[in-house]
Amino acid sequence: MKLIRDPVHGYIEVPDRLLPVISNPLFQRLRYVKQTALAYMVYPGMNHSRFEHSLGVMHLSLEFLKYIKENSSLEFLDQELMELIATTAMLHDVGHLPFSHTFENALQVAKRIYGVDVFERDKKTHVILGTQLVESGLGSELEKSFRTFEDPVKFITRVLLETPSNKEEKLAHLIISNFIDADRSDYLLRDSYYAGVEYGQFDIERLKRFLFFENDMLVVLSKILPIVEQFLLARMYMFQNVYFHSVVGMYNAILSQAIAQLLRDGYLVVPTEVKDFLVFDDNFVVSKLQLVRHELRNAIMYRQGFKRIKIEPGPSCIDKLESMKKEIYEDVRSSDGLLVYHEFNDVPYREEKDEAVYILTPHGVERLKRISPVIGSLSEIRKVVVGYHVSREDLGRKYEKILTECGD
Amino acid sequence: MKLIRDPVHGYIEVPDRLLPVISNPLFQRLRYVKQTALAYMVYPGMNHSRFEHSLGVMHLSLEFLKYIKENSSLEFLDQELMELIATTAMLHDVGHLPFSHTFENALQVAKRIYGVDVFERDKKTHVILGTQLVESGLGSELEKSFRTFEDPVKFITRVLLETPSNKEEKLAHLIISNFIDADRSDYLLRDSYYAGVEYGQFDIERLKRFLFFENDMLVVLSKILPIVEQFLLARMYMFQNVYFHSVVGMYNAILSQAIAQLLRDGYLVVPTEVKDFLVFDDNFVVSKLQLVRHELRNAIMYRQGFKRIKIEPGPSCIDKLESMKKEIYEDVRSSDGLLVYHEFNDVPYREEKDEAVYILTPHGVERLKRISPVIGSLSEIRKVVVGYHVSREDLGRKYEKILTECGD
Amino acid sequence: MKLIRDPVHGYIEVPDRLLPVISNPLFQRLRYVKQTALAYMVYPGMNHSRFEHSLGVMHLSLEFLKYIKENSSLEFLDQELMELIATTAMLHDVGHLPFSHTFENALQVAKRIYGVDVFERDKKTHVILGTQLVESGLGSELEKSFRTFEDPVKFITRVLLETPSNKEEKLAHLIISNFIDADRSDYLLRDSYYAGVEYGQFDIERLKRFLFFENDMLVVLSKILPIVEQFLLARMYMFQNVYFHSVVGMYNAILSQAIAQLLRDGYLVVPTEVKDFLVFDDNFVVSKLQLVRHELRNAIMYRQGFKRIKIEPGPSCIDKLESMKKEIYEDVRSSDGLLVYHEFNDVPYREEKDEAVYILTPHGVERLKRISPVIGSLSEIRKVVVGYHVSREDLGRKYEKILTECGD
Amino acid sequence: MKLIRDPVHGYIEVPDRLLPVISNPLFQRLRYVKQTALAYMVYPGMNHSRFEHSLGVMHLSLEFLKYIKENSSLEFLDQELMELIATTAMLHDVGHLPFSHTFENALQVAKRIYGVDVFERDKKTHVILGTQLVESGLGSELEKSFRTFEDPVKFITRVLLETPSNKEEKLAHLIISNFIDADRSDYLLRDSYYAGVEYGQFDIERLKRFLFFENDMLVVLSKILPIVEQFLLARMYMFQNVYFHSVVGMYNAILSQAIAQLLRDGYLVVPTEVKDFLVFDDNFVVSKLQLVRHELRNAIMYRQGFKRIKIEPGPSCIDKLESMKKEIYEDVRSSDGLLVYHEFNDVPYREEKDEAVYILTPHGVERLKRISPVIGSLSEIRKVVVGYHVSREDLGRKYEKILTECGD
Repeated sequence: MKLIRDPVHGYIEVPDRLLPVISNPLFQRLRYVKQTALAYMVYPGMNHSRFEHSLGVMHLSLEFLKYIKENSSLEFLDQELMELIATTAMLHDVGHLPFSHTFENALQVAKRIYGVDVFERDKKTHVILGTQLVESGLGSELEKSFRTFEDPVKFITRVLLETPSNKEEKLAHLIISNFIDADRSDYLLRDSYYAGVEYGQFDIERLKRFLFFENDMLVVLSKILPIVEQFLLARMYMFQNVYFHSVVGMYNAILSQAIAQLLRDGYLVVPTEVKDFLVFDDNFVVSKLQLVRHELRNAIMYRQGFKRIKIEPGPSCIDKLESMKKEIYEDVRSSDGLLVYHEFNDVPYREEKDEAVYILTPHGVERLKRISPVIGSLSEIRKVVVGYHVSREDLGRKYEKILTECGD
Repeated sequence: MKLIRDPVHGYIEVPDRLLPVISNPLFQRLRYVKQTALAYMVYPGMNHSRFEHSLGVMHLSLEFLKYIKENSSLEFLDQELMELIATTAMLHDVGHLPFSHTFENALQVAKRIYGVDVFERDKKTHVILGTQLVESGLGSELEKSFRTFEDPVKFITRVLLETPSNKEEKLAHLIISNFIDADRSDYLLRDSYYAGVEYGQFDIERLKRFLFFENDMLVVLSKILPIVEQFLLARMYMFQNVYFHSVVGMYNAILSQAIAQLLRDGYLVVPTEVKDFLVFDDNFVVSKLQLVRHELRNAIMYRQGFKRIKIEPGPSCIDKLESMKKEIYEDVRSSDGLLVYHEFNDVPYREEKDEAVYILTPHGVERLKRISPVIGSLSEIRKVVVGYHVSREDLGRKYEKILTECGD
Repeated sequence: MKLIRDPVHGYIEVPDRLLPVISNPLFQRLRYVKQTALAYMVYPGMNHSRFEHSLGVMHLSLEFLKYIKENSSLEFLDQELMELIATTAMLHDVGHLPFSHTFENALQVAKRIYGVDVFERDKKTHVILGTQLVESGLGSELEKSFRTFEDPVKFITRVLLETPSNKEEKLAHLIISNFIDADRSDYLLRDSYYAGVEYGQFDIERLKRFLFFENDMLVVLSKILPIVEQFLLARMYMFQNVYFHSVVGMYNAILSQAIAQLLRDGYLVVPTEVKDFLVFDDNFVVSKLQLVRHELRNAIMYRQGFKRIKIEPGPSCIDKLESMKKEIYEDVRSSDGLLVYHEFNDVPYREEKDEAVYILTPHGVERLKRISPVIGSLSEIRKVVVGYHVSREDLGRKYEKILTECGD
Repeated sequence: MKLIRDPVHGYIEVPDRLLPVISNPLFQRLRYVKQTALAYMVYPGMNHSRFEHSLGVMHLSLEFLKYIKENSSLEFLDQELMELIATTAMLHDVGHLPFSHTFENALQVAKRIYGVDVFERDKKTHVILGTQLVESGLGSELEKSFRTFEDPVKFITRVLLETPSNKEEKLAHLIISNFIDADRSDYLLRDSYYAGVEYGQFDIERLKRFLFFENDMLVVLSKILPIVEQFLLARMYMFQNVYFHSVVGMYNAILSQAIAQLLRDGYLVVPTEVKDFLVFDDNFVVSKLQLVRHELRNAIMYRQGFKRIKIEPGPSCIDKLESMKKEIYEDVRSSDGLLVYHEFNDVPYREEKDEAVYILTPHGVERLKRISPVIGSLSEIRKVVVGYHVSREDLGRKYEKILTECGD
């Protein structure tokens, strides 16, 4: 067992079985992928990496499992299975490209604006890349660590691809990827710690003690309904104020634009081999920025030269912008990225056929919306940000007009 | 006035006069210089930058000045002077090279091991570079902001070069560079926040309220002697456990070695022009690492391949190691850096003719050591770390033997 | 200026004008009135007093006023007026009876159950007593401290009685008694600090910086809408989980019962003279508990002997319980308090003709509900708790049946 | 298992075996004994009770034991023994008289000043009373909970009386009563939490993970020497600034005086029966204060009427004051307590034949002083405080003169 000091969780105790994975360069690489891309433009403390986040998710998954095992008397959940689930949790982001979601957005920009179809899959890019990397780069370590499992790599990939095939994998999936899970728990606590904002905090000590696994569902005791609400609200506030902050959004849009141009021009290629993936980190992308026009580089590096327009569009405005997409994309393209356009949206909570937060009440298991008017009241967050370089005030005026007329 | 959210100080209120300096790329560049180089190898949260530290020092200097003004009824200390001092504080690290002190150490390694005399001055490199940059890159902003001062640039450079020429500059110097000052206060609070260790914390709220400026001395009221002790002990513990952690030390030594080789081979050149300095940041150095041998790069990036030996040498051991320096340097050189050697030392507190912490007691001003046995008991911290690549176990065995025989 | 160390706000700086009021025994008495009555039965850290809360409210009112003055450029708000408002804030609870709201509830129990009409007014008892005490016990101190005011006592009483007669008093009233005010801000932060629960926390540093006073309204900038929501939710969670916790509620109901019997029997008399009021604190009531039957005393002091039944009643249940009130009261009376019955209710937020949280949006001032679906979703909290002594299992069974049939 | 929310440790998980002890009125009584007597006179947040402290000590002892068991592979330390030790820890203060140490001091004042020998033993009063109460009031609960132990009451009393008779009891004794133990760990963290001062904090998360039990000694790993130093310094600062604060000290001395007079006059009698002890709490003493002269009561309740003189005496001063003791006591007696005199002293750390902090270094177990110059530098804290009522300025002048001449 190895102790790692973590400012969010205090000490993280790493079981020995996980050490070879942590030492592998594929995992160490996550030190050089920022958790929240350019959020440090507004919140200067947000320089934290996917590396520490991944350790935190691993830690929380072990904590969750400890209490779930007790609360639901799960005999099948032995120490080795717990550690395999924790390893899966730890690897959930191993396939993230530089600047994480900003690069994934750049792939879309490259396609939409420049017609360059670099990498398209029906699932999230980082999940697909991640499972490929686990298969090709971590197989032998995993097999040595988890000897009683026939195929630990299969376990991990099935869970990460959201195709669990048995009870054990279902539990793992619910711990790692769910409305309330170890991943979200860690990033809310961690991102708000580094941003220095309190609204991302919630009572993790209480939450983790009242989780159950019943009938293949992750279930929460009704007495902690306030914590569940607090959790989902915390997430909503983090989206509204941090991840979707209009200044953060504009700089990420400019970075996406720059990456898209680098992809278009062949200066960046999404790697498929472990060897190439290893050096494909934030530093690598930054070192290529000298190849894009200086207005983009100066904006991304030094906050120079761009202004922004922002709205929270209503339904009719969304329709109107949708109908103008072709023109907007043309303006972005013809200005060579001196105009950028980005739409944000997130649904704070949604219940679908098999997906919901399940609450264990005295009258049985209920879906969250049935018993929480607060959560029932939450609606989709939508924002539109337009950025333009000061040398293109003409575009600024055009979009100022469009958005003002369109806005609520 | 602009508000910046800081996880350490809550909100930092930036006076309008300082905004042009903050917006300047020379200051924005500090986002890309890590505060504590490779400390994140052991403390994964330590990814913070000189940018936020500089804002913190600016903030604390304003706080200190507010209370000093009140406590010592300083009429000459008006708002504009306070803000000029705060600007000086904010610029104290503007000349830091990539990875800060690790690069300064690399300059010495380059000279000692490879005979390459890149940049030598009788004062700290980052101070000299910083004052040059202020002169050549920030003059017009500063003159516009501080109109009632004849030569704000001269003020700043005299203070940073530790050659204050009048009462105002003396006060500024004491606030920024002293045993207990805004710089150290910020880095102790900040580094321990990101490391997640408590021993770097001290009671800043109490400390700042009992500072005085009397007879050109910064003086502390005796009732907060415990805070003064706590501050100096906090600093000592941070050196012992974080900055001089043997693993942190070894990786920084390997990075110094790599930088020294890059300097030797002309791949890195310390810039003297603003334009070149702007891109000379951590990213830039990392992008050059592909030019050094893979053992060094893999160690620096992925913690691969090196082992370490560490001792806390006694006096006779120090003498012995001193006498072996030529041989040690030759081993480092001939192994092309597969052996690295680093000595750490820091004096937690020292009183010299004009330098001391001055305490205001009922019987007059006293030097700290006279009234604090705890501080009187502190002695120099000394550590030696040797790192060697696993392909050179022969060197490992040699130094294991030398250090074991030498150590206490 | 005097510094008081407060665990919630760090340091509280007390202006000199307020010192005579703080030193007065009427204010010192608040040390012996617990802020949250018997909440320590469930949350053992909640032993805090009205004394520290009152200092906290004073402190926050000064903070609020500092930013409001800046934001709304209020010239009439000079230092002396700010300190008079802060004094008013500090005195808002000076008339609280022992165990605060629990005693106020006991007055109702005494009347309803035992027909003893001890003290009835159309406003809150502690406000009326408080203003009387200020008039009769603090007049000379206040007049000495606030010389430029014609009648500082009148100012204070008009504000506390919610009958402000001019702009200054209106501002004071809004700062002290409002949906979002210094009183609630302090008690949420303070009560959650001592309870050790996070859901009562909110971002006070951000909240206080974006308050305005416009057209005699306290107005909040729309950019901090999330903080406003967080504040109102924090208050709701504190009510649901702490103040209205069913165990806390039952013990407070038993204490109310005991006090009511002491009032009925003349062992306790609500004092009207300053001299008698001074000794009328929690200790005094506790010393009288030996005069009530041992079952009540043992419950209140040592958590012995009572069991509880709790429901959250729906509308039809409320009607049914209302129709049974006579019978319930008779059971309480005839059991001599071995049965206790308590209804809780609180409306998290309500807009009425002149009362609302006003938000300053780009389109003008709006009422909160119009722009916050989350707040619009909040509904009244209602709980009913019945407690019965184990020697009266018959009553237990009776009410178990009634409540089970009635509950949702 | 029952969860109790504690602001210091988050959640305290209480094992089922301990619940009957917690529910017993003898333990519940600790809710009404303040942890730090009148410290709230200066630190208004310090209203916390021995009840929560005792729960905290229980919790920490379980935490310590968990890691010690792991680190030293202690097979004899099974779950039931761990919980018996935790119960012992929880009961270590059960015999505390009202206002804890202030009452113990009053017993000495009663004897020295008024010749009333109420209760004298060769060990600490609260320990003797505590073990008697455990024997007479908790025996049956303990025997039911700890069935595999022959005589759990004997175990507890032998440990509390510091006469352990076997390995198990020795371990218990070291966990509960030692230089670094669960008792001190809790009170430092807890008292500083409620005072709102940071210097009582130390890194408990790190401390507890590096404890060992070797050769019947509690041993600490040398890598956490900084935490050990921090712990002992934290304790020293808490004594210097909180427990021995001269204002706190004066009011506690006045309260001791009042209690001594009540003992002298027979209004208070130290109870020996469980039944009488149950009501003998802070409230009870306060209710008797109406029987002492109003100057004492007004000082104790409302901070009225007393002034203070304080010094930190050197050796010759101590001798001089010693030689004057008879006169001083006579002044206290003849003024009927309008003069009070109190000496404080505490030795931050002392090594004696069998007592020391033992550090496990690479070279074997060492005593702390040998390897820590900081701890070696600590010296005894000594303070003298004299308080006098304003009606006796004559005594004030007399002692002002004596102490001024005497002080350094």
